[in-house]
Amino acid sequence: MPETLLPRADEVERLILASPFHRWLGLRVTALSERSITVQAPWREEFVSDPGRGTAHGGVLAAMADLAADWALVGTIGRAVPTVDLRVDYLRPARPGPLTAVGTVVKPGRQVSVSEAVVTGADGKVVAVGRGTFLSAVEGASR
Amino acid sequence: MPETLLPRADEVERLILASPFHRWLGLRVTALSERSITVQAPWREEFVSDPGRGTAHGGVLAAMADLAADWALVGTIGRAVPTVDLRVDYLRPARPGPLTAVGTVVKPGRQVSVSEAVVTGADGKVVAVGRGTFLSAVEGASR
Amino acid sequence: MPETLLPRADEVERLILASPFHRWLGLRVTALSERSITVQAPWREEFVSDPGRGTAHGGVLAAMADLAADWALVGTIGRAVPTVDLRVDYLRPARPGPLTAVGTVVKPGRQVSVSEAVVTGADGKVVAVGRGTFLSAVEGASR
Amino acid sequence: MPETLLPRADEVERLILASPFHRWLGLRVTALSERSITVQAPWREEFVSDPGRGTAHGGVLAAMADLAADWALVGTIGRAVPTVDLRVDYLRPARPGPLTAVGTVVKPGRQVSVSEAVVTGADGKVVAVGRGTFLSAVEGASR
Repeated sequence: MPETLLPRADEVERLILASPFHRWLGLRVTALSERSITVQAPWREEFVSDPGRGTAHGGVLAAMADLAADWALVGTIGRAVPTVDLRVDYLRPARPGPLTAVGTVVKPGRQVSVSEAVVTGADGKVVAVGRGTFLSAVEGASR
Repeated sequence: MPETLLPRADEVERLILASPFHRWLGLRVTALSERSITVQAPWREEFVSDPGRGTAHGGVLAAMADLAADWALVGTIGRAVPTVDLRVDYLRPARPGPLTAVGTVVKPGRQVSVSEAVVTGADGKVVAVGRGTFLSAVEGASR
Repeated sequence: MPETLLPRADEVERLILASPFHRWLGLRVTALSERSITVQAPWREEFVSDPGRGTAHGGVLAAMADLAADWALVGTIGRAVPTVDLRVDYLRPARPGPLTAVGTVVKPGRQVSVSEAVVTGADGKVVAVGRGTFLSAVEGASR
Repeated sequence: MPETLLPRADEVERLILASPFHRWLGLRVTALSERSITVQAPWREEFVSDPGRGTAHGGVLAAMADLAADWALVGTIGRAVPTVDLRVDYLRPARPGPLTAVGTVVKPGRQVSVSEAVVTGADGKVVAVGRGTFLSAVEGASR
């Protein structure tokens, strides 16, 4: 039986919630596999960008894309690693309601890995997609 | 004398702070010109990604890059507009301390505009750079 | 029966080959649907970046990603439109052999559209992926 | 006197022209410093995207941005390295005439480096800007 680096979902959630920012987002891990993770954040009034429309700030969606793409690597690297760069495309306004982000590994690598994320709103429609490069080779604190 | 779309810095700050997310960030406008804006956010414990090192989450830096690049357009468009897409490059860990983001218009356009941002930490070192496309042509709420 | 903007594959190939750069690439349209296109380029010795390894230049792969993502819009917009911006992730070296690019519409829009592409080498392995924003709203020559 | 990794401009040009794709582009190195390079390509009829307007294909501009950003690293790494990812923003149509690309190192790193490029047309106007991540740590052929 091949060994896996994949921890259990509740253990990954615990690791994720070690970050104060992730606790502020109120993240839950709702699915986990070797190359994919699904995280969910309940709505917060502080997410709002446009007070008239009540939609989420792009920075919040970028954060969801970043962390989901990064933590998708937990099954191949064993943990999240520094984000090197990230592109986010905003497809629709994100109305109030839980935000879900599915992160998926595109290409694991010894030195850098490519991973992507799809962020959906409460109605299941995609509000943003992201793709980034992550530093697999990191050993300590700096690169 | 040519008319300008540029409001005063305190007026732009008031517009920016209409957003609950921006209020959560505690944003201040510290400089403003036709094609550039400087915003600052005091440190929040909730910004932290890695509790051991105490450095800021990439999502917070992405948010700073996004909003500075977007609000740099206030002098040419008269307000911020929807972000179409954004790329962020993370250059160094952002240690605890005020975050400053300078947004600059790269190319204003009737339909889309390109704008960029440089985010620096308390020591003045660049922690992230971003560049994005913004929807100049937006009239109402949706695109 | 709803009308479609989708021309026939041979007609799209003819439109694509109006471009001297596309003729230089030797492009063929091998599949076409409402929101997707597959194009193929035979190998050219001039594609080579590293003469020792004989692999393709990133610029050639970027071009394949750009044009496939753009022409994927032919079924929703009726033609290709100006690329606003493009991100390409390089996953593997592209060894000598035909390059295939599948372009797919992610989100059509009245003003801007998001589209992506997957570029594969002769062995069917993905060598690059790209995602970009395209100017749907263009009427004439300039934006 | 500190040692430098920077070869002479004519030597860098010779290295660049080892690539058949670069020879096809007809590249010349017109300036070189520790963290910057300027390359120029004469116009080729095969660059044309839109036969009516005669402007350059985005793939050609992406190639210019990629190679200039990459070769800007020659002074810090001693050679060009694999491109991990690249974003290009297209600002204006590139009309017929020599294309110039200035590549500049944004942040050199042991594992990955960030570098950018500005591509200008014959009239000196910026037609595209690019920013990418490059694999500093590469030892052999693959990552």
